[in-house]
Amino acid sequence: MTILRHPDFNAPELANAPDAKFVAAPADGVLPEDFFSTTNLPTYVRIKGAWRMPREPRMDSALVLDNDGLWIREGRKLKKGDMVAVGSAEDGSEGIYVHTASFLGDEEGEFKFMTSEVSREKPIDYALMAHILIEERDRGGYPIWVTGPALVHSRARADMVWFIENGFVSALLAGNAVAVHDIEASIFGTTLGMTRTGEATTGGHGLHMRAINKVRAAGSIARAVEQGVVKDGIMHACVVKGVPFVLTGSIRDDGPLPEVITTEKDGSMRELPTICVDSSEFVVSKLKDRGTHQAFGVVTNAQDFMHILRLYVERELTDRKSEQPSAQASKVRV
Amino acid sequence: MTILRHPDFNAPELANAPDAKFVAAPADGVLPEDFFSTTNLPTYVRIKGAWRMPREPRMDSALVLDNDGLWIREGRKLKKGDMVAVGSAEDGSEGIYVHTASFLGDEEGEFKFMTSEVSREKPIDYALMAHILIEERDRGGYPIWVTGPALVHSRARADMVWFIENGFVSALLAGNAVAVHDIEASIFGTTLGMTRTGEATTGGHGLHMRAINKVRAAGSIARAVEQGVVKDGIMHACVVKGVPFVLTGSIRDDGPLPEVITTEKDGSMRELPTICVDSSEFVVSKLKDRGTHQAFGVVTNAQDFMHILRLYVERELTDRKSEQPSAQASKVRV
Amino acid sequence: MTILRHPDFNAPELANAPDAKFVAAPADGVLPEDFFSTTNLPTYVRIKGAWRMPREPRMDSALVLDNDGLWIREGRKLKKGDMVAVGSAEDGSEGIYVHTASFLGDEEGEFKFMTSEVSREKPIDYALMAHILIEERDRGGYPIWVTGPALVHSRARADMVWFIENGFVSALLAGNAVAVHDIEASIFGTTLGMTRTGEATTGGHGLHMRAINKVRAAGSIARAVEQGVVKDGIMHACVVKGVPFVLTGSIRDDGPLPEVITTEKDGSMRELPTICVDSSEFVVSKLKDRGTHQAFGVVTNAQDFMHILRLYVERELTDRKSEQPSAQASKVRV
Amino acid sequence: MTILRHPDFNAPELANAPDAKFVAAPADGVLPEDFFSTTNLPTYVRIKGAWRMPREPRMDSALVLDNDGLWIREGRKLKKGDMVAVGSAEDGSEGIYVHTASFLGDEEGEFKFMTSEVSREKPIDYALMAHILIEERDRGGYPIWVTGPALVHSRARADMVWFIENGFVSALLAGNAVAVHDIEASIFGTTLGMTRTGEATTGGHGLHMRAINKVRAAGSIARAVEQGVVKDGIMHACVVKGVPFVLTGSIRDDGPLPEVITTEKDGSMRELPTICVDSSEFVVSKLKDRGTHQAFGVVTNAQDFMHILRLYVERELTDRKSEQPSAQASKVRV
Repeated sequence: MTILRHPDFNAPELANAPDAKFVAAPADGVLPEDFFSTTNLPTYVRIKGAWRMPREPRMDSALVLDNDGLWIREGRKLKKGDMVAVGSAEDGSEGIYVHTASFLGDEEGEFKFMTSEVSREKPIDYALMAHILIEERDRGGYPIWVTGPALVHSRARADMVWFIENGFVSALLAGNAVAVHDIEASIFGTTLGMTRTGEATTGGHGLHMRAINKVRAAGSIARAVEQGVVKDGIMHACVVKGVPFVLTGSIRDDGPLPEVITTEKDGSMRELPTICVDSSEFVVSKLKDRGTHQAFGVVTNAQDFMHILRLYVERELTDRKSEQPSAQASKVRV
Repeated sequence: MTILRHPDFNAPELANAPDAKFVAAPADGVLPEDFFSTTNLPTYVRIKGAWRMPREPRMDSALVLDNDGLWIREGRKLKKGDMVAVGSAEDGSEGIYVHTASFLGDEEGEFKFMTSEVSREKPIDYALMAHILIEERDRGGYPIWVTGPALVHSRARADMVWFIENGFVSALLAGNAVAVHDIEASIFGTTLGMTRTGEATTGGHGLHMRAINKVRAAGSIARAVEQGVVKDGIMHACVVKGVPFVLTGSIRDDGPLPEVITTEKDGSMRELPTICVDSSEFVVSKLKDRGTHQAFGVVTNAQDFMHILRLYVERELTDRKSEQPSAQASKVRV
Repeated sequence: MTILRHPDFNAPELANAPDAKFVAAPADGVLPEDFFSTTNLPTYVRIKGAWRMPREPRMDSALVLDNDGLWIREGRKLKKGDMVAVGSAEDGSEGIYVHTASFLGDEEGEFKFMTSEVSREKPIDYALMAHILIEERDRGGYPIWVTGPALVHSRARADMVWFIENGFVSALLAGNAVAVHDIEASIFGTTLGMTRTGEATTGGHGLHMRAINKVRAAGSIARAVEQGVVKDGIMHACVVKGVPFVLTGSIRDDGPLPEVITTEKDGSMRELPTICVDSSEFVVSKLKDRGTHQAFGVVTNAQDFMHILRLYVERELTDRKSEQPSAQASKVRV
Repeated sequence: MTILRHPDFNAPELANAPDAKFVAAPADGVLPEDFFSTTNLPTYVRIKGAWRMPREPRMDSALVLDNDGLWIREGRKLKKGDMVAVGSAEDGSEGIYVHTASFLGDEEGEFKFMTSEVSREKPIDYALMAHILIEERDRGGYPIWVTGPALVHSRARADMVWFIENGFVSALLAGNAVAVHDIEASIFGTTLGMTRTGEATTGGHGLHMRAINKVRAAGSIARAVEQGVVKDGIMHACVVKGVPFVLTGSIRDDGPLPEVITTEKDGSMRELPTICVDSSEFVVSKLKDRGTHQAFGVVTNAQDFMHILRLYVERELTDRKSEQPSAQASKVRV
């Protein structure tokens, strides 16, 4: 992993830089105009002639100076009167220096092939990832896993359990779906009714709801594990190993499971024309795989979709004006 | 649009079906074992010899009979003692009939090309979508738009404003990012610092935070519009036309804007090794485009990633055991 | 693997079917009107009251009867006067029966989740694939591998060599690029100048040309292996193990390598505006990774691109007519 | 469009550079060791103290000096004894200067969002593309279109015809499939049996073969147009407008059409286990949409696929050794 080297503070542009300027926040949660907006790179602030690094570094936030020192704070957490650094220069000329050379490489205009950063044509260094993960575990770090339901559907569940049981997971962040399908797999052997070999099953569409109901009956995931309702899998391993998990909810979540953090919503649903726009077939197929069989699937980008739909709406509106009062239903162009 | 035809209730399997059976919910928010789990297809329930359709249809829920009639209810909303239909047969043989033929076609095992449902090789009927949208507006329907930030970044903003101003949007559901970048575009002409021709700008990374700060200073999006801070764009059009909007938040949202519905979280962030796994280059590029330059990008599926990472971790653990007490850093395989 | 069961020839629709009708081909390489177009499913033809299966089954071809029996032949290979089966019915009613039930399942209109055939959310049965591959090798089958250059770039080269050396590859079909980058990796340790850890190198853009030149100097890939120019890798393993390979060429191939099958083209290239349209970022990034830095990248589908580009061209043409004779360069809309 | 500015030849590193060195090609089609490999950027070669630009610029080729001047030539076209520039420095220090600053920007290590080059989140300037296309047509340029069959399947056919008829297409490069499906659409109104609204049709799988057969019967596409067999569409427009087209073939092409350039192959096809690996669902779905229903679809990258398949093969081989002589079929792991 990259080790930070400090910049050369004796270089003229840093040695001769002025102190940073601080201005009071005009109201709670409101920053002064021209506040300095932080990056995720090492940042140095000149205060009384010395270059200092703020504590609690964070991107898209503000530099705040108080009696305890120099901090990075989110704007929404400020109180009226907090002293906030202002300026936009990142080269030290206004007393703030962002050390870009520390992590970002210097790219020159040189002719090279294969310069894209991420591509299926680039080698993946799994050995390095494995090494970092083991190092992190062994020195008491906090590897956090953010997982989606594809992990459970594709049957990488056993691997995830292995990572939890072997101490590589300090916390799990997931949505309701990950826990639901993991527990459905434990109780019924399916996920959304799909068997471990990928077959959809008759009546399988209700199994995730039955799984949720059993956990609700038990009161919590932990109690469902204690009572033997949930006997294996990711959530089981988290409970047994004491790994904390945060399950976030959405408006449309099934159930949800007792632990899911959600904002309650009320409302009914009626069958509606649904248009799903995405740049890959997958997203639309996923929607249909969840039962929204009536969706229009459009594989395109946002710009083109909006342009063309507007064009067609305008065209039909124009046609209507010129053709009144004839019927419209038969006029759809193909 | 599809018009529903009822099934033939005189067919022997329906005419001779028994009444559906109802069982009391054992606790608040808990369904009886073997509850009938609803679909999104038309459903008929036999009660005292007559086939009835429940009100408030909804998928993944339960059939509940009370003094006001037959309802579909989410399990979490039930009270102890509510009477819930049980059974899993969907063909009427247990008094519940799911009318699959109404919307799902009958697929026979016939040799055909081009049978996939969604593909970039399939024609898109924009004229039909336009027609439905106009019809929906004209008969007082409620077209709801769920949009993501790509819409704003790709400059489909003007088209979205057009749809709002012309009455095609009854409500807007979006995340914090859509409103932030729309307002940034209104005030600064950029989105995440990117110009309308797609160029990243120096210092541009702070502009969305400045936009948020101006709205926070005004107190709300509506007041920012009234005060002339926000002069055009999607949120401006919503405010002016009185179109309601729901902005949902996430843990990591910048700001957020005053109206964003969020669950408050506290915590600091430090630079950490980050691994981003997705089946398309886009997701990883997006992460890097948001400043997470240190992320490992892996273009693969969940199953393969978990398998291989586990394999490499196991391999390094085995190597460590056999090679103690030698140093590890130099042993990374390539 | 699926074992074929014959249909029930005693079923009335087959037992009472007529003989198939054969008509003479009107010219060399031309089929009679209404020829029967074959599928890739088992097919039975009734001849003198008996159901017979044709030899050399093949999709998109014709049924031909000659003195040696019943064959499936591509249309382009027919001679004038060859007797070709006609008809379009596949249910036996015209003497030809396509046995769809043999391999295609019968899909009923039942409500199920997860019915899509291919998805990153479906489990992949690598164990089954491995089993089939081993079985195929052990009973003398012919596993044919068709590979693209991503295999070499991503450093799956060592695995491919392993499969060749262990007898799992009976033939290799690839393009010029696979062999070029494999040999570049053997000689220089790079592919298109990219190191094994994914870094682009200065001057690396010429290394694949130097690799090609060395093989051209040797005369062939086999001789380059014999002379010790190519010491390891995929092509080396093919030569050493005697695995035949077919390298297909394209108009724009670098080199190409001596063995590449190509249709010679002549022509020069000048820098031109290039527009690359694809539904994924990858294809456009790949083009840029090969040096076409000037390409417009458009991530969309064919239909939308054509519609919108035409719209903009029409718009500019209209503008030109109405604005003559003013200059155009400054009129580009944004 | 970018206008090239020459470099400053008075700058010391260019003013004091030596002449480039030329070495004779050792054999026909073979370059000397250390030949200079060209890029697609403007290149200057110092000859007798003067900086000269080669004619017929081309990437991945060599600089050749003969009595007619300085040329860029592909290695395969050289004759023994041709004089070829050698060296790898691109900064003029060996007499060859590659002018990278002309087209490639200078990227500094500055913190910016949205720096990726191609993304669905980037605005597309269709107006600029339209402007370039019109300018190109009006000054007698040669816009070349390279199209795939998705264009025809998605019904962008009418737009393509419009571009041809309005003079925006000087040549068309395509595969057999584009012409076949365009002609199928003209004769039968379908593409691969799919209607213009995207429905697969019974018996439709043979329609493209019938279309091919009609063109073969006519003798060529042009004659099929003359005889009124093909009445509209892309190929029709090309013939009528005299736009040249090149249709390239592949081993597996249906037909092919008379004009398709192909290398003849002979061979039969039997049903085989087929594994299709790609990073998007689309490619696998496309294969199935063409009738290869038995294919294993694996959505992953080349590296992961090879690693995992090898792992599973090794595992089964190990199991076999240790478990002989028991039966294997029942041992497949899940």
